[in-house]
Amino acid sequence: MNCQVTLLPEKRQGSALAGTALREALARLDMEVLAPCGGEGTCGKCRVQVDGPGLESPGPAERALLSAEQLREGIRLSCQARICGSVQATVPAASRPAPMRILPGGVDRKIRIEPAVCKQAIHLQPQTLCEPYARLEHLRRSGNLRADLRAVTELLPQLPQLLDGTEAEITAVIREDQLLALEPGNTSERCFGLALDLGTTTVVAALIDLNTGRQLGYASTVNQQASEGHDVIARINTTIEEADGLQKLQAAARASLDRAITQVLAREQVDPQEVYEATLVGNTTMVHLYLGISPASLGHLPYVGMVADAVDMPASQLDLHLHPSARIYILPAIAGFVGADTVAAALAASFDEDDGRIRIIADIGTNCELVLRRDERLLVTSTPAGPAFEGARIACGMYAGPGAIEAVHLDGDVHCKVIGRQEPRGLCGSGLVDAGAELLANGIIDETGRLLEPEELGEQVSEALKRRLVPREDGLSFVLAESVALTQRDIRELQLAKASIRTAVDLLLEKAELAAADIDEFVLAGGFGNYIDKANAMRLGLIPELPPKKIRFIGNGALVGARLALLSRTLRQRGVQIAQRAEHLQLAGTPDFQDRFTEALLFT
Amino acid sequence: MNCQVTLLPEKRQGSALAGTALREALARLDMEVLAPCGGEGTCGKCRVQVDGPGLESPGPAERALLSAEQLREGIRLSCQARICGSVQATVPAASRPAPMRILPGGVDRKIRIEPAVCKQAIHLQPQTLCEPYARLEHLRRSGNLRADLRAVTELLPQLPQLLDGTEAEITAVIREDQLLALEPGNTSERCFGLALDLGTTTVVAALIDLNTGRQLGYASTVNQQASEGHDVIARINTTIEEADGLQKLQAAARASLDRAITQVLAREQVDPQEVYEATLVGNTTMVHLYLGISPASLGHLPYVGMVADAVDMPASQLDLHLHPSARIYILPAIAGFVGADTVAAALAASFDEDDGRIRIIADIGTNCELVLRRDERLLVTSTPAGPAFEGARIACGMYAGPGAIEAVHLDGDVHCKVIGRQEPRGLCGSGLVDAGAELLANGIIDETGRLLEPEELGEQVSEALKRRLVPREDGLSFVLAESVALTQRDIRELQLAKASIRTAVDLLLEKAELAAADIDEFVLAGGFGNYIDKANAMRLGLIPELPPKKIRFIGNGALVGARLALLSRTLRQRGVQIAQRAEHLQLAGTPDFQDRFTEALLFT
Repeated sequence: MNCQVTLLPEKRQGSALAGTALREALARLDMEVLAPCGGEGTCGKCRVQVDGPGLESPGPAERALLSAEQLREGIRLSCQARICGSVQATVPAASRPAPMRILPGGVDRKIRIEPAVCKQAIHLQPQTLCEPYARLEHLRRSGNLRADLRAVTELLPQLPQLLDGTEAEITAVIREDQLLALEPGNTSERCFGLALDLGTTTVVAALIDLNTGRQLGYASTVNQQASEGHDVIARINTTIEEADGLQKLQAAARASLDRAITQVLAREQVDPQEVYEATLVGNTTMVHLYLGISPASLGHLPYVGMVADAVDMPASQLDLHLHPSARIYILPAIAGFVGADTVAAALAASFDEDDGRIRIIADIGTNCELVLRRDERLLVTSTPAGPAFEGARIACGMYAGPGAIEAVHLDGDVHCKVIGRQEPRGLCGSGLVDAGAELLANGIIDETGRLLEPEELGEQVSEALKRRLVPREDGLSFVLAESVALTQRDIRELQLAKASIRTAVDLLLEKAELAAADIDEFVLAGGFGNYIDKANAMRLGLIPELPPKKIRFIGNGALVGARLALLSRTLRQRGVQIAQRAEHLQLAGTPDFQDRFTEALLFT
Repeated sequence: MNCQVTLLPEKRQGSALAGTALREALARLDMEVLAPCGGEGTCGKCRVQVDGPGLESPGPAERALLSAEQLREGIRLSCQARICGSVQATVPAASRPAPMRILPGGVDRKIRIEPAVCKQAIHLQPQTLCEPYARLEHLRRSGNLRADLRAVTELLPQLPQLLDGTEAEITAVIREDQLLALEPGNTSERCFGLALDLGTTTVVAALIDLNTGRQLGYASTVNQQASEGHDVIARINTTIEEADGLQKLQAAARASLDRAITQVLAREQVDPQEVYEATLVGNTTMVHLYLGISPASLGHLPYVGMVADAVDMPASQLDLHLHPSARIYILPAIAGFVGADTVAAALAASFDEDDGRIRIIADIGTNCELVLRRDERLLVTSTPAGPAFEGARIACGMYAGPGAIEAVHLDGDVHCKVIGRQEPRGLCGSGLVDAGAELLANGIIDETGRLLEPEELGEQVSEALKRRLVPREDGLSFVLAESVALTQRDIRELQLAKASIRTAVDLLLEKAELAAADIDEFVLAGGFGNYIDKANAMRLGLIPELPPKKIRFIGNGALVGARLALLSRTLRQRGVQIAQRAEHLQLAGTPDFQDRFTEALLFT
């Protein structure tokens, strides 16, 4: 039976077979309702408001996560509710992918611009009888190009038209020993490349001028894979559990990149045909999915992927709609969950060079990767921080988009800083760190992470703050704003995330026979890392106690690294060296990992 | 109007639109009637016998080339006769592509076998926690493979299935720094490659065992392009005159190669999936057409092609149905008409090495290419010998197939050696040389090439021979066998071919400041070259007077060279060096070329 589905307030309509999950039907109307749990009915983030009798009765998952009143009001979990008739669904802002605050760039290293792709204008004279060279050889000689320059096969059939033997100006597009294309006239001023960051959550495309190294613009979009689950584990499971899961995720990654690329090119008025190279970074799972390689082996011990090498291939093979001869270079990964994004962040932070200092970089996302440099030694590890810092599994959690509380300060009462200067509607990662640290500093949560009852609180806690402690069905919560509260369970999630990262930092230091005090520089990368309050992060124990000036933010290090690899063949090679030389510390293989982790759960 | 066309004796039927040339209609019935002139109605080789009233009346071309009696008997030129009703056409053996005598191999150089593609069986152990490498790195370490070995992109999605982490035997297929494939189990004994010779007339595919270097078998087929004209000039014209000419010729070349490859693989019971590399040689026009590059620029001064470089590309891009990751390597060309086939022949004749001797190689086909080696110097040139040696433009000319007179000796009367020990039905190249030389030696033709009237002949000429001088409509002819005669015009063709080659040899010697007597070795390559009588060739002046032991035959040098390049990376590289170092002598640019050519027309 076909049932009519209407999306509100957009008023988009379509039909779906009876039995289809509402979320799936909405996806076909181009509305991707959030589902960090991957549509398993456990996160409760995919709520929609429905009208009409067209849904089956709520099942156990909905009854567990929605109150009787909510169900009466027509609130349903769209991943669980199944269609049985006509239905109108209003998707609230909180259930929609938020326009996120993206870190497009970050700090830049000073580098010599020597991109793999460059252009050279050549003046061609007609050939004489004394120059019986093939036209391509005539071109090489005329332009003084390297003798081993070879035309890519796609170019060969076009040569007769491009090199017609008359006097002409022509521009050679060269990539190392490959002649990628010939453009009539002198087009050497327009030479573009793309730096791509295929993130688990967000996809960014930055358009780079390969002559100047300048970033001309960027565009970002949600990784459409997110509808299959918030973190890499959920997506790995999709590839295992669904016959077409891998294809679906690959297609979603490609479509997301395509969207970001199309946007930035349109905005900067660059024709896709003018782009001859892209570099791409992403974590190991993302790169596997993008290349159509099952990431299943990353899901179990010993957590290895199939390939960690840099990949250099025709962009067209990955459905990138650039010049037909364009290439894509995917940076190498190190091991398991330490992927190309980490290599790129390490490049962005100059970890390819030994400057005599002891340095750590932490790229904090749903997964946290760490690199430690000491002299010639590079140590890496990774740890699943969980999605708490990205707003998932937090009662009022949300991405760092408009309406998110990004900073919290307690000063007798609560002061919140909200992204976009609007009414607070949720809590993002940096706000979560602040809230936890401030509650800890004010004695409202104890060292074990327990939210104290108002009567347990000392006199130094103001009445205003005490009044914010409100019991909920699932325990005590602390109200931050009218519709935003921090629950006891949220604090447990924060503890897990913090313990996970801190244990990794400590074990890495131990492996390098160093103490926290030896650290000369602690680099924070990633969207979340860039906005957290240093002091609060240290207060929580997320990062070791260090003089604040030793802590440095580099923004989206992965994207910066992709840009560096696009602009410098030397740095591209250095990335390969980082990947080859790094020693990987497998936390799961460290004997006292569990003890250390348990210890790190405490706020001490 | 659709008309029924029946091919006899095969009884194959089809239909054709009124106005279609009969030859074209027959081609759709998979019968390629010979047409060395390219279907222009000038060679008269495409004769068929027709029944039924379904053809338009003969036009001027048919009336010129066919006698009134022939026309009455239903003999027609199939390239000219246009269909207007039902027609039955019997295609006689002489108008069908003959099964040719092909030179599959030729002399072999002693070389070290070091093919670009090799196999290595590897025993894989399960990975432990202490080996957190990507599975491909685990493979490299287990097999002690080069660290920079990269999987081709086609292989990446297959890795999870092939490297499943369990203990296993697996075979890596390696080509330089590329991992082309992984085969379960130990398949290292079966490692195959193809050496391909894309000749203007004939296509040969030789199957080579890359472990032993042994040629396991070969298959040859007519180059299906031949229906568009016998020589490269006719085919270049097709690409200029017909909108889809290039595509048609490219498709014909690919289909011909496919046919030869399919045959040899089936015969030797090798699966196409087991072939990972092919090397290909051909003249510049053939390689251009095969790659889909218009060869138009080869048709006019300064006679240059578009590209002379070696081409290394995925075989699948050229529709070769081998392993999906298989590569094809096309040997480099030198300049203009001196193509990859010449480079290959030079490799076959060891011209990449200086052995202190002065050597010339002549690869005689419709086009004749020459290479001279003196110390470190390599001089090359080419000359259009014309198709006489391949039987075209010769009244009773035919390919060197069954029924062809391949040798002629005059000893009071005529003694002919016929291929296939059957009734003579035509004259092939070597027979033409013999006939010319013997008639010259016996004083039946004079120095200017004129066939003398019986009454002009001296007494030393027997009556039997004199009786063989028979006048024809187009002049005098000499009867070699019941249905085979040599005409005055044939002798003129022979003179043109001979003059063309000899002038090139002489000018090349001059350029190197050498005399004919300085030649230490004269190498003859090509199907024709291999069967000619040394003494007769010298008597005609086709090659300079030399002690016979200085003349060496190497057979199909082009194919041998393709095989050498398949089996030895060193020789492949030497081929590139030959191409790069050779100095090209453009005959058309030599001031006294015309004078020398006119002089060389004489049999002196």
